[in-house]
Amino acid sequence: MPVKLNAPEAASLLPVRGVKLGFAKAHVRKPDRKDVLVMMLAEGSRVAGVFTKNRFCAAPVVLCKEYLAAKKGIRALLVNTGCANAGTGEDGLNRARQSCEALGNLMNINANQVLPFSTGVILESLPVDKVIAGLPAAIENLKEDNWLNAAEAIMTTDIVAKGASRQIQLDGKIVTITGISKGSGMIHPNMATMLGYISTDAAVSQNALESIIQYVVNKSFNCITVDGDTSTNDSLILMATNQAGNVEISENSYNFAAIRDALTEVAIELAQAIVRDGEGATKFMTVTVEGGKNEAECRKVAYAIAHSPLIKTAFFASDPNLGRILAAIGYAGIDDLDVDNLQLYLGDVLVAEKGGRAASYLEEQGAAIMKESDILVRVVLNRGNENITIWTCDFSYDYVKINADYRS
Amino acid sequence: MPVKLNAPEAASLLPVRGVKLGFAKAHVRKPDRKDVLVMMLAEGSRVAGVFTKNRFCAAPVVLCKEYLAAKKGIRALLVNTGCANAGTGEDGLNRARQSCEALGNLMNINANQVLPFSTGVILESLPVDKVIAGLPAAIENLKEDNWLNAAEAIMTTDIVAKGASRQIQLDGKIVTITGISKGSGMIHPNMATMLGYISTDAAVSQNALESIIQYVVNKSFNCITVDGDTSTNDSLILMATNQAGNVEISENSYNFAAIRDALTEVAIELAQAIVRDGEGATKFMTVTVEGGKNEAECRKVAYAIAHSPLIKTAFFASDPNLGRILAAIGYAGIDDLDVDNLQLYLGDVLVAEKGGRAASYLEEQGAAIMKESDILVRVVLNRGNENITIWTCDFSYDYVKINADYRS
Repeated sequence: MPVKLNAPEAASLLPVRGVKLGFAKAHVRKPDRKDVLVMMLAEGSRVAGVFTKNRFCAAPVVLCKEYLAAKKGIRALLVNTGCANAGTGEDGLNRARQSCEALGNLMNINANQVLPFSTGVILESLPVDKVIAGLPAAIENLKEDNWLNAAEAIMTTDIVAKGASRQIQLDGKIVTITGISKGSGMIHPNMATMLGYISTDAAVSQNALESIIQYVVNKSFNCITVDGDTSTNDSLILMATNQAGNVEISENSYNFAAIRDALTEVAIELAQAIVRDGEGATKFMTVTVEGGKNEAECRKVAYAIAHSPLIKTAFFASDPNLGRILAAIGYAGIDDLDVDNLQLYLGDVLVAEKGGRAASYLEEQGAAIMKESDILVRVVLNRGNENITIWTCDFSYDYVKINADYRS
Repeated sequence: MPVKLNAPEAASLLPVRGVKLGFAKAHVRKPDRKDVLVMMLAEGSRVAGVFTKNRFCAAPVVLCKEYLAAKKGIRALLVNTGCANAGTGEDGLNRARQSCEALGNLMNINANQVLPFSTGVILESLPVDKVIAGLPAAIENLKEDNWLNAAEAIMTTDIVAKGASRQIQLDGKIVTITGISKGSGMIHPNMATMLGYISTDAAVSQNALESIIQYVVNKSFNCITVDGDTSTNDSLILMATNQAGNVEISENSYNFAAIRDALTEVAIELAQAIVRDGEGATKFMTVTVEGGKNEAECRKVAYAIAHSPLIKTAFFASDPNLGRILAAIGYAGIDDLDVDNLQLYLGDVLVAEKGGRAASYLEEQGAAIMKESDILVRVVLNRGNENITIWTCDFSYDYVKINADYRS
C-alpha cells in the first residue's frame, strides 16, 4: 500500500483556465479502464517539456521533441496507457503520428500541435486504431474540472491517482497551478516511466518556461528513485495558458521566482507521491547528503544508498542494519573519501562517526526510528558546502511480485 | 535453491602440498557452526591478494594490505564468519591484530605473517576472544585434505559450499590447484562480501603471482554480480607453495600462460558458483556484450542489464519481457549509442534489431528460453571489436526474504 498517500479529492484539484481534460476507455490493453486522456489547451498557451535520456527513447518522445521544436503552438496532449510504443522502430513512429493526426482532425488543428505520450509495456506495437476509436468519447467529456479523472486515466501500476494544486497571487490576480503524475516503478534520476503534466493559467514567456522546467525537474523528478531503472518514455510537461490576466512573466520579472517556486512545490509533491506509491513500498525514505565538495558527489552517495537492494530490504524489515549504509557510502565512488571524517544519522540520531558505530548510539534508537513509515537518512561528508536531498522507498516482496507479474 | 550447483565431493577437492586447513566451531555468532578457519602455508610460499575498493574497507582488509606490504613471508590465513569487523574503527583494527598475534603465538610465527579475514554483519564489534578461543581446535585438525570443511567454514548465507580443483603438468611434474570461495549476495564488479582462496603447489615468482592475480580477478570475480552492492571485506588470495618441483615460473616463462589459465579456470568456476548460489537465485544469467568500442562501454551495458531489478524480476517470472532489456541498454550511459544498429539475442534467438522487435521473433521462442535455468543474453553493439561476458542471477521473493531477515 502507498506510504501515507491517498488519492486527492476531486475538488482539491483546481481547474486551470485554458485547460480542458477528457478521457476514454479505449481498451488499449485492458477492458473497462480509463486509458486515453486528451488535454486541450487554449490558443496562445506556452508549453515546455523535458524527456528521458534513454537512448531507446520511445516513439512518442521522438515526436514530442519534433513537434515542440516546430513551434506551431501546442494545443493538445494525447496520452495512452497500456502500451508504451517503445522499441517499436519506424512503425511505432508512424502509429504515434497517426494518433496525432486523428486528434488534430477532430480538433481542427495540425498534427504537430498535438503532443503524444504512451506508457505501459514496451516492445509491443501500439494498437493505434483503439486509441483513435476512443478519441470522440474523450473529446465529448472535455472539461476543466476533470483533473482527477485525468490522473486516473494515466495510471499503470499506480495504486493511487496523483495530483496537486496551488494558488498564488501575481499582480493581484489569482493564479492556479494544477498537476498530475503517474509512475511507480522504474523511477530514477533523469526520470523514468514517469509522466508529469503541470499547468498554470499564468502568462509566462516561452523562455521563462524553458528555464523554469529545468529548475523544476532538478528539484523534483530528478530527485526520486524507486528501482534505478530509467524508462524509455519519461516526460514532464509544463503548460502556461495565459488566462490569469497577470503581466507576462519573463526570466527577469520580479514575479519569476514566485511562479517558479509554486510550480516546483507542485512538482515535488507529485514526485514524492510517485515514491510513496513506489511498487511494493512500505517506507518512504529521505536521503540527505550534506557537506560534499560538489553536488555530483553528493548525488553519488545519495543514490548509492537509495539504489542498494541490501539497504532497501533492511528498511523493509525495519532492521537498523546501518552497516549496509556505510558500505554503500564507501562504494559510492568518491575515491578520496575519508570515512573517518563523516557522520551518519538516522533521523536525529548519530549512528556512525570516526569510521565506526558512534559511542552514543543505542540499537534501540535505531530500531525505534526504523519502525516509522517516513525515515530520514542523513550523511554529513564534511568535505565542502554542497547538499542534495533525494527520496526513495524500500524494497519488499511486493516489488518482486508486481514486476514478476506485470505482463500477465 | 542454487541454480544447478551442488557442493563438491570432499574427494574432488584435491590436496595442495604445502597447504593445511583446520576449522573450529567458535560460536562467533551462532552455535554449532564451523566459523573459524585456519590455513597454514609451507615456508617459502608466495601469496598475493586483491581487495575491495570500498572506502569503508574492513579492519582485516587494512591489515592484509599492511602485512602483505611488509613482505615477511605469509605463513597462515585466519578467517572468521559471523562478524565482518567492518565500520569498527581503531578498535576493530586492534581486535584483528589481536587475532593475528594469537595465531602467530600458537604457530611460532609473527603476527604479520598471518592474514586475517572476516565476513558477516558489519558495524558490530568482533568477538575476538571467541575467535582466539577457537584457534587451538582449528590447529588441532589442520590437514591437507580438509578443503570441503574449509569451504563450509567460510559460508555465511551461502547454501552450498564452493570449491574447485584442477591438475596440470608443468615440467613433467603434476601441479595441483584447489580453491574455495564464499559469497552469495552483495556481489559486484570489484568483488563483494566475497572471499576467495586459491592455492597451487607450483613454484611461481612473486612478480608472476601479482601479475596473474590481476588477470584472474578480471576474468572471474570482477565479472559477477548479484545485487550490485560492493562489500567492505572482499578479498581474493592466490597462494603458491613451491612444493611441486617445477622450475619457478616467472612472467617470461613459457609455462606462465599455462598456470595462469588453470588458475583462471578455477577462479571462474568459484565465481560462477557464487552467482549460482546467489541469494534467492532461480536462474543463472550470462550476459555477453559484443562489438563495443572498448571494454568499459561493454561493461556499462552488461551491468545495466545485470543490475536492473526490473529485468531480474522478469527473469524470475520466466517472462520474456525483453523491452526491459532494451531500456537498460538505452540508459547504460553510452551517449552516442545508435539503437537502430544493435541486435539483442536471447540464447540463439534474435529478439530485437533496428530499434524494435525483430520481424522473425516469436514470443513462443522467448518464452521457451526463459523457462531454462541457464539463460544467455547477448547484445551486439556493432561499434567496435571489444567484448565482455558477465554472470548474474535473477531476483526473487527469496532475495528479499534473505536480506530482510539476515540479522534476525
